[in-house]
Amino acid sequence: MLTIALCGSEAQKQKYLPSLAQMKTIACWALTEPDYGSDASALKTTATKVEGGWILDGQKRWIGNSTFADLLVIFARNMTTNQINGYIVKKDAPGLTVTKMENKIGLRIVQNGDIVMGKVFVPDDDRLEGVNSFQDTNKVLAVSRVMVAWQPIGLSMGIYDMCHRYLKERKQFGAPLAAFQISQQKLVQMLGNIQAMILVGWRLCKLYESGKMTPGHASLGKSWITLRARETAALGRELLGGNGILADFLVAKAFCDIEPIYTFEGTYDINTLVTGREITGFASFKPVAQKSRL
Amino acid sequence: MLTIALCGSEAQKQKYLPSLAQMKTIACWALTEPDYGSDASALKTTATKVEGGWILDGQKRWIGNSTFADLLVIFARNMTTNQINGYIVKKDAPGLTVTKMENKIGLRIVQNGDIVMGKVFVPDDDRLEGVNSFQDTNKVLAVSRVMVAWQPIGLSMGIYDMCHRYLKERKQFGAPLAAFQISQQKLVQMLGNIQAMILVGWRLCKLYESGKMTPGHASLGKSWITLRARETAALGRELLGGNGILADFLVAKAFCDIEPIYTFEGTYDINTLVTGREITGFASFKPVAQKSRL
Amino acid sequence: MLTIALCGSEAQKQKYLPSLAQMKTIACWALTEPDYGSDASALKTTATKVEGGWILDGQKRWIGNSTFADLLVIFARNMTTNQINGYIVKKDAPGLTVTKMENKIGLRIVQNGDIVMGKVFVPDDDRLEGVNSFQDTNKVLAVSRVMVAWQPIGLSMGIYDMCHRYLKERKQFGAPLAAFQISQQKLVQMLGNIQAMILVGWRLCKLYESGKMTPGHASLGKSWITLRARETAALGRELLGGNGILADFLVAKAFCDIEPIYTFEGTYDINTLVTGREITGFASFKPVAQKSRL
Amino acid sequence: MLTIALCGSEAQKQKYLPSLAQMKTIACWALTEPDYGSDASALKTTATKVEGGWILDGQKRWIGNSTFADLLVIFARNMTTNQINGYIVKKDAPGLTVTKMENKIGLRIVQNGDIVMGKVFVPDDDRLEGVNSFQDTNKVLAVSRVMVAWQPIGLSMGIYDMCHRYLKERKQFGAPLAAFQISQQKLVQMLGNIQAMILVGWRLCKLYESGKMTPGHASLGKSWITLRARETAALGRELLGGNGILADFLVAKAFCDIEPIYTFEGTYDINTLVTGREITGFASFKPVAQKSRL
Repeated sequence: MLTIALCGSEAQKQKYLPSLAQMKTIACWALTEPDYGSDASALKTTATKVEGGWILDGQKRWIGNSTFADLLVIFARNMTTNQINGYIVKKDAPGLTVTKMENKIGLRIVQNGDIVMGKVFVPDDDRLEGVNSFQDTNKVLAVSRVMVAWQPIGLSMGIYDMCHRYLKERKQFGAPLAAFQISQQKLVQMLGNIQAMILVGWRLCKLYESGKMTPGHASLGKSWITLRARETAALGRELLGGNGILADFLVAKAFCDIEPIYTFEGTYDINTLVTGREITGFASFKPVAQKSRL
Repeated sequence: MLTIALCGSEAQKQKYLPSLAQMKTIACWALTEPDYGSDASALKTTATKVEGGWILDGQKRWIGNSTFADLLVIFARNMTTNQINGYIVKKDAPGLTVTKMENKIGLRIVQNGDIVMGKVFVPDDDRLEGVNSFQDTNKVLAVSRVMVAWQPIGLSMGIYDMCHRYLKERKQFGAPLAAFQISQQKLVQMLGNIQAMILVGWRLCKLYESGKMTPGHASLGKSWITLRARETAALGRELLGGNGILADFLVAKAFCDIEPIYTFEGTYDINTLVTGREITGFASFKPVAQKSRL
Repeated sequence: MLTIALCGSEAQKQKYLPSLAQMKTIACWALTEPDYGSDASALKTTATKVEGGWILDGQKRWIGNSTFADLLVIFARNMTTNQINGYIVKKDAPGLTVTKMENKIGLRIVQNGDIVMGKVFVPDDDRLEGVNSFQDTNKVLAVSRVMVAWQPIGLSMGIYDMCHRYLKERKQFGAPLAAFQISQQKLVQMLGNIQAMILVGWRLCKLYESGKMTPGHASLGKSWITLRARETAALGRELLGGNGILADFLVAKAFCDIEPIYTFEGTYDINTLVTGREITGFASFKPVAQKSRL
Repeated sequence: MLTIALCGSEAQKQKYLPSLAQMKTIACWALTEPDYGSDASALKTTATKVEGGWILDGQKRWIGNSTFADLLVIFARNMTTNQINGYIVKKDAPGLTVTKMENKIGLRIVQNGDIVMGKVFVPDDDRLEGVNSFQDTNKVLAVSRVMVAWQPIGLSMGIYDMCHRYLKERKQFGAPLAAFQISQQKLVQMLGNIQAMILVGWRLCKLYESGKMTPGHASLGKSWITLRARETAALGRELLGGNGILADFLVAKAFCDIEPIYTFEGTYDINTLVTGREITGFASFKPVAQKSRL
């Protein structure tokens, strides 16, 4: 939906956005491929021009909501220009199959799909005119990173609330756990992290609203917040002791949910290198793969 | 089985150990209660002397294998002496019910049970003569902590192997992930941790074999090793990126399995305080629960 | 100066503040004693009422600027009420000696003094009428913690600037250090910390300005910021390699300066317990000193 | 001395080693240059063949003991072969000047020197016949890393001893600091680190003695041990509170001494990449210095 809003034509916006906004139709966003995750700009799905439209061939992986989405926004390499383009594919398009990925340890509420496209036809009207290079997907990514940055904040706040209540109620050695130095210090560290995470998230939104947010800002916010959230969740998991292993107490579940958030929408490492490029002027994504002489 | 071997009478050993050793019968070890985990020495299950035996009343929780064990070794407070005693209870004893705990995020291969005992009779022959105080359970705990200390070592080695292979096979930006500085450094840190964990585990066994191992040694080994294992698992989970979320790749599963190990058989915090008591001469488990004047 | 402004009488303010504001006279603030640091509320310096004034006896330690201050604000226990009171002592008061503490590894620009008071007379006019209990010193501490919280922010920003410049100028293996993944990631982590530290410091000031700041807020801000500053300084020290050992490059100096800041105005641990008391309702400062039976 | 023993001719060993062993003469080892630290293999000091010997030109930096050494082992690039060679230079050689480096924050007991060589003549007899490439310096580095790995172990043990004593003697809130949960847990973590460091150091020596030690082993031992030592020192510094700032209490001094050890003889990062190369088969030292298009 975000991509259509940011990169669609007026006609596409009028055609698709209202029912998306009412959740009558659901869309998903398909960039990552089995062999191109962090290195998404090298994606291999192809879009070949034919009479009246385009033929898409290739695979996508990890695509959230794709198992039930009505519209799939697919990024593919235009075989004429060799640039990345975007296409709106309907769920019942011939040649399209989506399989649900199983055995995730976190964010199990989100269904991720493996998509295979074999000669899927897309009419000209469904090409997104605003996606003409990988840079254009970065515009979407930057915005979605702002949104994703708030997920671990909410999870961390929930973890804190649960731990705060648990420590006051649960007694050991004749005293509430909240009266133990070690437990109290962990709770305070969590609170400090959460306050900072909220402020960093808020600042990021302010930058976005004022039109000053760069990709490096978004990546810094997302990576730093998830780093602190991961620490906060590990502290909270520990504070609940054995009950921190049971999903019933919610902290265990949140602990697992933070792992995919730490990694998707750009891994922690990739996001630090996006920001690193911006503050140093050097792109360091690509290593020299020197076979060692040793 | 360990408790019977360490604390049973000759007759009990001859009666129970052979079939336990052949795995024809399975035993479990029940100390923890719903309200007494770290503070197990204050447990509330009672053992009341009656003609020809004892009557057990109370609850146990988190008891591994208890859902299918033939023999349950139950620790209870002797109502005459007020000391902790140990009893062998048969699975079909009237008044005994065991319910499987659900929704664990880790070590799902181990079934933990909630045990309720309502007037469960145990004949005199099935009281463990070597358990006469909480100190005696500590003897068992010290040994079992040595064994538990090796579980995260094995898991960490498995995580390392999986990551090592994955980094060499998976390519991004035209090079194997193994050629990236950031990934390589994480892998090396994991290897350093594992080497140290093995050495610490080995040293602990040497101390045990020579009869010099103290409870503080066992707790130090268990807590330090699990701390490093937790760090190693988090690094490994990250190294696998999105595939680190899928249990199929084993690292995600091992990452979750380390959480209960970090916490059971004495949480990290409790084990550090057991060692802390030994090296300082001060027990610091019990806080002063001062209601703040503020 | 802060204490006179917050706790002095109108007459004292008019007498002392103008020349203090112009830095014609310098004041210092003396609470900590050789044996009462974190536990300052138990201080042992005494104030005994005599005709026309008070007699102070005792020692103070770590008192910043005391070696050259014109006015020393001394906290002492009123022997009549057993409460903490505050007194303004002149540098040339008979019975007062101040010795400079040597061999500090950080904040060497600040001179800390050991103060010995033997029957030092203070006229009635120089008792601070607003200090009538230890709670009153806490008012001063809360404000000064807000100010102290900004010191590590400034130091961290200086460290970042120096590292950013160094990484772009220094070359190894034919490339600027800024182009190395490992170095770039450290720099980004530092930047994320600094952004968060500034926001937390700013929020703390807003709370203070609006009159809503509690002691727990101040302690959380001070402790959390210094924790992140310590991490930032260690990263920066490392980024400069060998040159990170030389005070000439400033990062080494700042690295050492953060240590006393982490510890003074309430250690990290004490500040977390101040906040912990506020969010849990339990004071956990005082342990039960149980001699272990083992 | 190590280099002469490992790479010298029989005649050189007989000439120099006895008085070095008796400490009648002192040697130093000069590899690092102002612009070539981690990247020492690219060093720029030149050795030009002349009648009866060699002419050395260039600079060295950070050379320990060089300010008073009688013999300086200098590594230089043979202008004929372009390979690294080693030379024994006498302290009074014409054209040699050594300046002491000032303002180090740690290891102040070691004098490091800046060396400038302008047409320094070395007779043929003083070329080390066993140094014919940078690989040969690696042999020396591997051995010296084993020795360096023990320095932080000794420092950490000293820190632990000092903290253990301090916590038992120092009282706050009416109890020894050793009775506080938070302090006790830090002390235990330090002890766990130290035990592991000793075992890793011991294992490294065993590998060396048996002739199986690789450069990757040495780098892993040195980097992992210094990482844990740095953590241990930071914990110990904190445990001493304000007194942890004073060099008089030794912990502050040891805290500072660990910083250069963490960095010299290969920084932490470089050593992890040396090991990383060995376990992955990929050298990742050299980045692609891509000027970002952004």
